[in-house]
Amino acid sequence: MRLFKYMKFGLLVILTLSITYSCKENETLSNNMSSNSGHPSLILTKQGVSDIRASLGSIPVFDKTLEATQNEIDQEISKGIDVPVPKDYSGGYTHETHKKNYILMQKAGALFQILNDEKYANYVKDMLFEYARLYPTLPVHPKPRSYARGKLFWQCLNDSNWLVYTSQAYDCIYDFLTEEERSTLENDLFRPFADFISKGNPRFFNRVHNHSTWGNAAVGMIALAMDDDSLLQRALYGYKAAKIDPNLKDNDGGYINRDGKMGFFANLEEPFSPDGYFTEGPYYQRYASYPFLIFAQALQNKKPELKVFQYKDSVLLKSVTALINLSNKDGDFFLLNDAQKGMSYKNASLISAVDIGYHFGGNNAELLSIAKEQEEVALDDAGLAVAKGLKDGKEKPFSKKSIELSDGAKGDQGAVGILRSGDLELVFKYTAHGLSHGHFDKLSFALFEDGDEVVQDYGMGRFVNVEQKGGGNYLKENKTWAKQSISHNTLVQNEASQFKGKYSIGSKHHSNKYIFCAEDEDLQVASAKEENAYPGTKLHRTMVTINDEEYENPYILDILRVSSEDSNQYDLPFYFLGHIMQTNFEYTKLNTPVVLGDSDGYQHLYKEAIAPVKNGNIKLNWLLNNKFYTYSAITSNNDEVIFGRIGANDPDFNLRNEQTIIVRKKKTKDALYVSTIESHGTYSPVSELAINAYSNIENIEVVYDSKDYTAVNIVTKNNKSKVFIISNENNNKEAVHKITISNKEYTWEGPYILTENK
Amino acid sequence: MRLFKYMKFGLLVILTLSITYSCKENETLSNNMSSNSGHPSLILTKQGVSDIRASLGSIPVFDKTLEATQNEIDQEISKGIDVPVPKDYSGGYTHETHKKNYILMQKAGALFQILNDEKYANYVKDMLFEYARLYPTLPVHPKPRSYARGKLFWQCLNDSNWLVYTSQAYDCIYDFLTEEERSTLENDLFRPFADFISKGNPRFFNRVHNHSTWGNAAVGMIALAMDDDSLLQRALYGYKAAKIDPNLKDNDGGYINRDGKMGFFANLEEPFSPDGYFTEGPYYQRYASYPFLIFAQALQNKKPELKVFQYKDSVLLKSVTALINLSNKDGDFFLLNDAQKGMSYKNASLISAVDIGYHFGGNNAELLSIAKEQEEVALDDAGLAVAKGLKDGKEKPFSKKSIELSDGAKGDQGAVGILRSGDLELVFKYTAHGLSHGHFDKLSFALFEDGDEVVQDYGMGRFVNVEQKGGGNYLKENKTWAKQSISHNTLVQNEASQFKGKYSIGSKHHSNKYIFCAEDEDLQVASAKEENAYPGTKLHRTMVTINDEEYENPYILDILRVSSEDSNQYDLPFYFLGHIMQTNFEYTKLNTPVVLGDSDGYQHLYKEAIAPVKNGNIKLNWLLNNKFYTYSAITSNNDEVIFGRIGANDPDFNLRNEQTIIVRKKKTKDALYVSTIESHGTYSPVSELAINAYSNIENIEVVYDSKDYTAVNIVTKNNKSKVFIISNENNNKEAVHKITISNKEYTWEGPYILTENK
Repeated sequence: MRLFKYMKFGLLVILTLSITYSCKENETLSNNMSSNSGHPSLILTKQGVSDIRASLGSIPVFDKTLEATQNEIDQEISKGIDVPVPKDYSGGYTHETHKKNYILMQKAGALFQILNDEKYANYVKDMLFEYARLYPTLPVHPKPRSYARGKLFWQCLNDSNWLVYTSQAYDCIYDFLTEEERSTLENDLFRPFADFISKGNPRFFNRVHNHSTWGNAAVGMIALAMDDDSLLQRALYGYKAAKIDPNLKDNDGGYINRDGKMGFFANLEEPFSPDGYFTEGPYYQRYASYPFLIFAQALQNKKPELKVFQYKDSVLLKSVTALINLSNKDGDFFLLNDAQKGMSYKNASLISAVDIGYHFGGNNAELLSIAKEQEEVALDDAGLAVAKGLKDGKEKPFSKKSIELSDGAKGDQGAVGILRSGDLELVFKYTAHGLSHGHFDKLSFALFEDGDEVVQDYGMGRFVNVEQKGGGNYLKENKTWAKQSISHNTLVQNEASQFKGKYSIGSKHHSNKYIFCAEDEDLQVASAKEENAYPGTKLHRTMVTINDEEYENPYILDILRVSSEDSNQYDLPFYFLGHIMQTNFEYTKLNTPVVLGDSDGYQHLYKEAIAPVKNGNIKLNWLLNNKFYTYSAITSNNDEVIFGRIGANDPDFNLRNEQTIIVRKKKTKDALYVSTIESHGTYSPVSELAINAYSNIENIEVVYDSKDYTAVNIVTKNNKSKVFIISNENNNKEAVHKITISNKEYTWEGPYILTENK
Repeated sequence: MRLFKYMKFGLLVILTLSITYSCKENETLSNNMSSNSGHPSLILTKQGVSDIRASLGSIPVFDKTLEATQNEIDQEISKGIDVPVPKDYSGGYTHETHKKNYILMQKAGALFQILNDEKYANYVKDMLFEYARLYPTLPVHPKPRSYARGKLFWQCLNDSNWLVYTSQAYDCIYDFLTEEERSTLENDLFRPFADFISKGNPRFFNRVHNHSTWGNAAVGMIALAMDDDSLLQRALYGYKAAKIDPNLKDNDGGYINRDGKMGFFANLEEPFSPDGYFTEGPYYQRYASYPFLIFAQALQNKKPELKVFQYKDSVLLKSVTALINLSNKDGDFFLLNDAQKGMSYKNASLISAVDIGYHFGGNNAELLSIAKEQEEVALDDAGLAVAKGLKDGKEKPFSKKSIELSDGAKGDQGAVGILRSGDLELVFKYTAHGLSHGHFDKLSFALFEDGDEVVQDYGMGRFVNVEQKGGGNYLKENKTWAKQSISHNTLVQNEASQFKGKYSIGSKHHSNKYIFCAEDEDLQVASAKEENAYPGTKLHRTMVTINDEEYENPYILDILRVSSEDSNQYDLPFYFLGHIMQTNFEYTKLNTPVVLGDSDGYQHLYKEAIAPVKNGNIKLNWLLNNKFYTYSAITSNNDEVIFGRIGANDPDFNLRNEQTIIVRKKKTKDALYVSTIESHGTYSPVSELAINAYSNIENIEVVYDSKDYTAVNIVTKNNKSKVFIISNENNNKEAVHKITISNKEYTWEGPYILTENK
């Protein structure tokens, strides 16, 4: 089926339509691309359709998804077709309608294949012809906000979404159409559409960025559907003829293309680490997963010789489990970089991802338990495989363990360290910048308990697709607040964001892993260093989960060492969620809040209360979701504690008015922040019983601190004491250390030790 | 068993112990009280125990509760007995331990009867003897905060709790003890204990108040357990010998005893309306339910001739269903007066209440569905009946409908109107003051959707039993904020609370019902008037739920008429929960918030933004729990809109920093506030789809307003319009009305109409 391979635009080549199979599977792509011919052949295959039809009625999850889909589409068919002239931003009527349409077409196409009922084919066909009539009349979209405006939508990104889905629908009804109908659709709609988002918008198409992944997949999918190998080349390797200024930036401030890398394979190569971590973070990995995996599935079906799933040591398959590991107990993704709260692996695009991961990745039984939670499968070969696996009861619980996921194409640009202990999940970020969606938050962390965020990452300044809020797009507070360092649980020097808050600087650097060891469930350590965020200042943070029988639950120990050539002011914010119950120190509430600073996010924080503190420990006890928590931190004379609240300089009520506590050290060169976080008790508003409402920690104290070692002693209320010692410069697992603290000698092997201090 | 009836304190009468039954059932209480003799006879009866033993293993809910109880008590027995010297406030160690102990004894007593295992009897006995050793040594409790300090606890109230439960335990092991053991316990512990909370604290015991109900029940239960009719008289009719200053007040500012009413029957008579509404509100009704019902159960078992369950037209049984009707879809109680959020009918005291309501109230099958949700039954005769009913599948859904519950002993002191439509539950308060727990919130309302609060009542300023927060007791902000009018969704005149914020004034008045009609599910109306809150100013508020096919969901129409002799400033706050999405009017955020006022709760509000508004409609669109809401309000020239936030003058972070929007009218005599509240759309953070994000209302307008009639026209985006007309002075259901508005004549029967306005 390569009828149109050499067809030029505007020239309608009429050929006698004969279904000729051409299966030269061993040809290389660059010479003469092979095809598993016939239709459908992208997501559904002829064999798959035949298997599905044979299994219908005996594969519960598939049957259920099919029934729900059929109900949905039948209802939509009865409403008729609506293809409005594009006008709105996201959230607006025309945007949402076109978005809905491509999903409907994709589903109706699958229904036609599975149920063999022509009403679904006709629905797709009629809608496509509406688009074929409309598209040639369209100028660029009237809304001007995007660096790459689309035609159906305000940005090429959404146009690409449309084509990725619609290609599948076209593939499904391909054989149902006459040759003339196909010609019309391809010439009036698909080819100009693909050209517009590629040739017409190279600054969108020729990047390493999730936008381009969508663009590449869109062009590639329609190329596969049309059997157009030349177009497929463009998808896989980029539109080579374009010239792009390497200093050009997009709306988010990211460079368009600094190094000339482009095309699907480049997008597969660059943003994924060997562990399958996507450098933009899980929220965008979820978004990018669909084009990556759906296009890979189509390539695997149609061009198996490309071995796309084996590419880069099977990075696509690894990315699926990596992504699941980047979610909390409820399946919600951790908030790394730009990310909206509440996004989870129940998102539709993850249904395909999990199914594809299972089907093409060796039938990992743990993925079945995720599919079971999703309660839905893709209506394709992969979904069938999952439904059968579930029917046969093959699923095993997906065991989310502590894991470190490296960042960077080669895995050498830092990592995300996830420590899981009991119901706690600690996410510690020491990655690269994360492209244009990155935040200036090196060595920040967030803490979850039982699926609820306890110490939060703010997430993004955006209400996605909520038109009332800036058209559903990024709000200006995303840049002025959410990306800034002070909005994260990490160190801020001299009230300025890391890397001066500049993407051009931040994107050149990454933190470095120092230790990640989770072998002992009762003592897990993630430690990392950052030496570029503030030139002349070195940061070294170590986060530890300790499960000790003296405590109700595991708790967190946090040691942040700061060494600087200069004297600075340091702020370490702690964004606890919940209601303050008690502190062990006096503070003064201001009569009215004052704005904390002028820039770098400080302008969005109110100072509500202040407390000068002294040598010793401060304790903050709070209640969240009927659980009691305590933050204990070592302070020094002249430290200041600030109670802050988000919401200053927020003229449109775009920000959430949540609180923070900041430990400020002034005029300091070297500093050592040490704290613990305990989840120690519960409250029931029904029984009104408060259990273990207080911290179990009597005192924490630095008992040793040098360039080489830092030792912290932790004493419980029952006067049991343990000392944690870390080697600051030698992370060799075999190294033997010996130091003397208070006349006691400590000897151990490896970079750290936790031991009783009698 | 009236061995000790004539026994005097300190005199140990030794009698040969012979179990003599004395069943003169027809004797009147005042002459010679009858007894169903033998033990147990309070909550468990001999017959009940026999039935329970025969049914064990075949009554799942009962068996499950029994197993859980047995596990709990076995574990506690293994830990040993702890009866510490009293020292702490609520939340503290000794408080919580004594509280735990009485529950443990009550449960162990039941286990002894049901399982016939002496280890449980011994556990109760040993613990009681510890108390019998300790109690005589105790001075009044060292913590001074209560108007009636206890001995085991800081307030007599908790001592009474102890005795209510412990009496049951004593009844259960009565026959297990020797006569000498009983003598010791009764003389050293129970009698002095009962005397202390009654004779020793008449200002606690001789009231009409939930405190006294506990006190009366405590003395009454131990009297029944000891077969002491004289003591029982004291419980039922009060300690007559005491003299109490009628002007004396308690810690909450409530009068101790103005009118000399006292004893259990007075407490039953006064605070319950004929509909079973308890004037303090459902939170305290829940708390008071246990002593009311458990003592009633014991009376019914032991003194059936008193017919306690038939008293006042079966008000106790009615109170159980009234209380369930005062809960939202999730079973959480509406916040009326002092009330902590999250309290629900799953509270342990409600388990007994529901079981008793079922067992003694004619086996209402709807109560079984509540018991099913509770997943637990009382380990007594009533619990057995419920467990059997559930086992037999007899339960029917408890159908919570729109209902008006009158307030006042005779039902003539206003009411609570609850309108339920779709997933919405509107609670409209036009009651009496609610004794010392009352708030100054006449004509306030709260709105719930699907069990979540949308427009909130703040609740109480207290974290019950959370010691970190003021010992778990009422915080000063309860009085300065939570009780004040401005903290509620009701009108505030001249920045002063209703009734000058004085209990002495507020408790003399009540609002008046005007209309409550829920016969037509699509148009339900609750309307009430308040003429005493601000002398010279009359308030008339009408709240309507309208279910109209032009709208996605039912919506609320709110009409508040204010007529005054003087020119005033009026504030109408609207405490929406959630995040502001959009307004249709310009506002100016202040650079930093300022405190809104000086007193009456205003000192706790920050002004965050202001907007001068004009003739027309303001719209506020917000997002809560992934649902979109819009508040539309008619405004006039010179009105001002204030965005407020709770939290000013809150030195200990005791308040929740939630927001409000206030429509302020200055220098106005008569005012008409008209608004609508729509729940119109949804958002999914997983699919990122926003559906029906906007209000369906184009405009609301007052088209007629006179002393006699008010008419509001509501126009949808589709230009469909309906007019709601209410007769302001004639609520007769048969009255026929005729008025002409804009040359159109409207004729209808009854106090209101909603009709198309073509």
